[in-house]
Amino acid sequence: MSNVTTPLSDLEIANKATMQPIGDIAKAAGIPEDALELYGKYKAKIDVTQLKNQTADAKVVLVTAINPTPAGEGKSTVTVGLADALHQLNQKVVVALREPSLGPVMGIKGGATGGGYAQVVPMDEINLHFTGDLHAITTANNALAALIDNHIHRGNELNIDPRRILWKRVLDMNDRSLRNVIVGLGGPAQGVPREDGFDITVASEIMAIFCLATDYVDLKKRLGEIVIGYTYEREPVLVRDLKVEGALTLLLKDAFKPNLVQTLEGTPAIIHGGPFANIAHGCNSVQATQTARKLADVVVTEAGFGADLGAEKFMDIKAVQAGFKPNAVVIVATARALKMHGGVDKKELKVANPEAIAAGMQNLAKHVETVRAFGVEPIVALNRFITDTQEELDVILNWGTENGVKIALTNVWEQGGAGGLELAQAVLDVLATDNHFKPIYDLEDSVENKVRAIVQKVYGGADVTFAETAKKQLADIERFGWSNLPICMAKTQYSLTDQPKLLGRPEGFTITVREVIPKLGAKFLVCLTGDIMTMPGLPKEPAALRMDIDENGNAVGLF
Amino acid sequence: MSNVTTPLSDLEIANKATMQPIGDIAKAAGIPEDALELYGKYKAKIDVTQLKNQTADAKVVLVTAINPTPAGEGKSTVTVGLADALHQLNQKVVVALREPSLGPVMGIKGGATGGGYAQVVPMDEINLHFTGDLHAITTANNALAALIDNHIHRGNELNIDPRRILWKRVLDMNDRSLRNVIVGLGGPAQGVPREDGFDITVASEIMAIFCLATDYVDLKKRLGEIVIGYTYEREPVLVRDLKVEGALTLLLKDAFKPNLVQTLEGTPAIIHGGPFANIAHGCNSVQATQTARKLADVVVTEAGFGADLGAEKFMDIKAVQAGFKPNAVVIVATARALKMHGGVDKKELKVANPEAIAAGMQNLAKHVETVRAFGVEPIVALNRFITDTQEELDVILNWGTENGVKIALTNVWEQGGAGGLELAQAVLDVLATDNHFKPIYDLEDSVENKVRAIVQKVYGGADVTFAETAKKQLADIERFGWSNLPICMAKTQYSLTDQPKLLGRPEGFTITVREVIPKLGAKFLVCLTGDIMTMPGLPKEPAALRMDIDENGNAVGLF
Repeated sequence: MSNVTTPLSDLEIANKATMQPIGDIAKAAGIPEDALELYGKYKAKIDVTQLKNQTADAKVVLVTAINPTPAGEGKSTVTVGLADALHQLNQKVVVALREPSLGPVMGIKGGATGGGYAQVVPMDEINLHFTGDLHAITTANNALAALIDNHIHRGNELNIDPRRILWKRVLDMNDRSLRNVIVGLGGPAQGVPREDGFDITVASEIMAIFCLATDYVDLKKRLGEIVIGYTYEREPVLVRDLKVEGALTLLLKDAFKPNLVQTLEGTPAIIHGGPFANIAHGCNSVQATQTARKLADVVVTEAGFGADLGAEKFMDIKAVQAGFKPNAVVIVATARALKMHGGVDKKELKVANPEAIAAGMQNLAKHVETVRAFGVEPIVALNRFITDTQEELDVILNWGTENGVKIALTNVWEQGGAGGLELAQAVLDVLATDNHFKPIYDLEDSVENKVRAIVQKVYGGADVTFAETAKKQLADIERFGWSNLPICMAKTQYSLTDQPKLLGRPEGFTITVREVIPKLGAKFLVCLTGDIMTMPGLPKEPAALRMDIDENGNAVGLF
Repeated sequence: MSNVTTPLSDLEIANKATMQPIGDIAKAAGIPEDALELYGKYKAKIDVTQLKNQTADAKVVLVTAINPTPAGEGKSTVTVGLADALHQLNQKVVVALREPSLGPVMGIKGGATGGGYAQVVPMDEINLHFTGDLHAITTANNALAALIDNHIHRGNELNIDPRRILWKRVLDMNDRSLRNVIVGLGGPAQGVPREDGFDITVASEIMAIFCLATDYVDLKKRLGEIVIGYTYEREPVLVRDLKVEGALTLLLKDAFKPNLVQTLEGTPAIIHGGPFANIAHGCNSVQATQTARKLADVVVTEAGFGADLGAEKFMDIKAVQAGFKPNAVVIVATARALKMHGGVDKKELKVANPEAIAAGMQNLAKHVETVRAFGVEPIVALNRFITDTQEELDVILNWGTENGVKIALTNVWEQGGAGGLELAQAVLDVLATDNHFKPIYDLEDSVENKVRAIVQKVYGGADVTFAETAKKQLADIERFGWSNLPICMAKTQYSLTDQPKLLGRPEGFTITVREVIPKLGAKFLVCLTGDIMTMPGLPKEPAALRMDIDENGNAVGLF
């Protein structure tokens, strides 16, 4: 990225770092020794029941971004760098992040632990199995699937229609061959044949529940409320009808405790949970955020994809369900990505093109408006690349001055926290102001009106239409009394519209909702638009081909 | 079991125990602090590269059993109790055990961590996710499956015949609906349709490799040698042809380190790996056994099922590949189980029946002969139940006296190590004698002759026949130069024959080998007889229905 001569890889930088024993990080963060469960020397789980007397009152800074492009924005890198910068300014700060999914690690280069000198460590372990949370979620998800099929095989007392089962199996793997499968073949002793499919683990409703539950009691209650499918009479069947919500909760017992690690600069980092940002809400767990809020004065956290998806759901779903009010929002942008929003092809990114950037600014402008619509004043982090020209950067900085938007140039990939001091000071300035946060819609409003509010106020579109299937599902949702749940939009991340190729700031468009899927455990209604991929595939040359281990058991070729 | 008035459950006994911090257990066992990686307060992984100067020279005691019956034998319980008894006799002892599979835990009552006062703890954590080893193996197995299907989808440069893929996907779950599936449905973007199936994780060849590899270099080499299937020209395709053995090894990096826990009496226990005992060799990892041998003077370990399967493979596969000679073998038997071998139905077990026991003694007699055929003098552990009458026990004890077989009465379930002192002393007596161990066959012999040696010397049968499919496979194995591998018999555990209902000591029978499957990574040839189940199902009332968690996150209803 920013380095010119043979830059070190993220793994090489991470491996050169001297980590502090995680007990020292915990002590500095005020975590009592009894609350710490070590996982090796540099990872630990936090037993939050031991933090009972501490109040979750830190201010919350959300890092989001413009609509992502293949140029890369560096949202996680800025999130980590901002936390390190606040640390350098002597703030009591904790960064809260999502934990990476292993599937994409095997597929494409690029981790979820930041980059350059703004990383969380040990990066290899965090990107591989970490403390096993995703494996526990995979297990709970697939135990439920096995219990459903066993119920049908053993007489189907609940009268479940095998053609109307919503619950899918999952693997934390990029495996396109499992998207559509037939299970139960081989005769009467091998179960009941039916169509099924596998999602990637982060798409499981159990991951969403895991990330929104406030404690074990809430976790178990939510698991019990998952709609697994419908009877032949089209009545919903819940997990609690199967009486297995206790077992599923038990399988998540240890995973549910947030994980403590550190940044390269020794800032405490809590990394826990990581749901999809399209069919789920895309933020780390409420446990992680609230634990961080007990320990710090300022919590820096992130949400998936751009502000239209991640920030909207962070505000309308996570903040509302967890009962806190975000205090500041950082929107990450790069000259390269804005150039693509201005119509430039990926191959032409290295050519200076201030005019394209000027055209692409409208994407950023929309996200600034969106954050303000939530009552929060945004700060733009302009994440610098070595190829950016001063003329290009000036287009963006001048736009900020002209439009009254604070834009801070950051260079945390190359400099760590020192490259984010201007951004950190801008954030502190916003944190010193009053909090006027409000969600974008009222939960008591109709589903149609809630979706319309998102389309108009967040995407800048004209209206929403519901396909026939979605209309039928809405009628059922009304009938079952589930209408007052929040909305979880499943939309392409690349565009403000439901068409991935429409970059920049389209206007006058209509969003089509194909399906409305109830996620009663997560407590939201997923509105599907366009084609949403819930099981990725591997590329022609998977990253696995480069991955290896040396004779002492050290990771090689991981990023 | 032995208690009369409302006995405590295994979980209740385990939860009442005061565990020592695992660091104290490690220190007493002579594990340097640098070699210890904590997983919570009572579990740790051992970095064996830090034990380089220690020699693996402890004597090895194998605990095996008569052919298992529904009456239960308590092999793991005796293994733990014997170690505790040796500990009480001031021996420097470490017990090495297999780690439990989660699938059966969800299905049927009964863990794999011993019982009563002879248990390893923390039993709930060991029986649930433990330190994540099985999840890492599941991930490596399924990464390979995804990489194979991706290779075919992306042009199939290796010319793999999708109808001749041997590699199956796995889950650590009892899920019969996944035994036979069709994957890759949905059109050209969703992979290539083909028949596939899921095994339970412990049946993966990666689990067998994990348990036989001596270090990371050997692990990677073995993973590269897995035969994943055949080309359209019927030539074998190996993992190293795909160039992903490095990535698979990396996925096993941390899992490959043995796990340290403790017994209820504070004896160090190393629990690591747990392959199936039919299509694999059924013993804990070589890493675990050899690490235990570095730390102790006596290592007590177990093998799966009865002596015909578990002990035979322990001797002919594990001991030979790891290069050690077992010093003593304990055969666990109970009056109840011998009664079933004498023809009594499970429902009639509570009725005293010395005559049936006398008839059933022949099953034990055969296993005594078998162990002697390996050049080792066996000790019988007669595991006492409260319902046993003195007359019944006398039948067994007198048989021992008359036939020159040492039989020690044990009561470790109720008394812990104190209930196994006679057994421990008998073991020490054998350990004081010279070691005359020798495998039952010569690796250079033909496959047919090696199988014949097992059938005749271990099962007490007349001969072996190979079905047509097996004969064709043998010709291929000869052609590819794989004939000098050891044999891994996949046979019913219930009988010395390949017919599960033939209990006692059948004679004059022939074993039919249906298929011969090369496992080049594990370095053995699996000979399939009868119907071998590699993916269990759930019962009508799964144990999951009783499992729960309290509001503080403690396990409830686990056993």
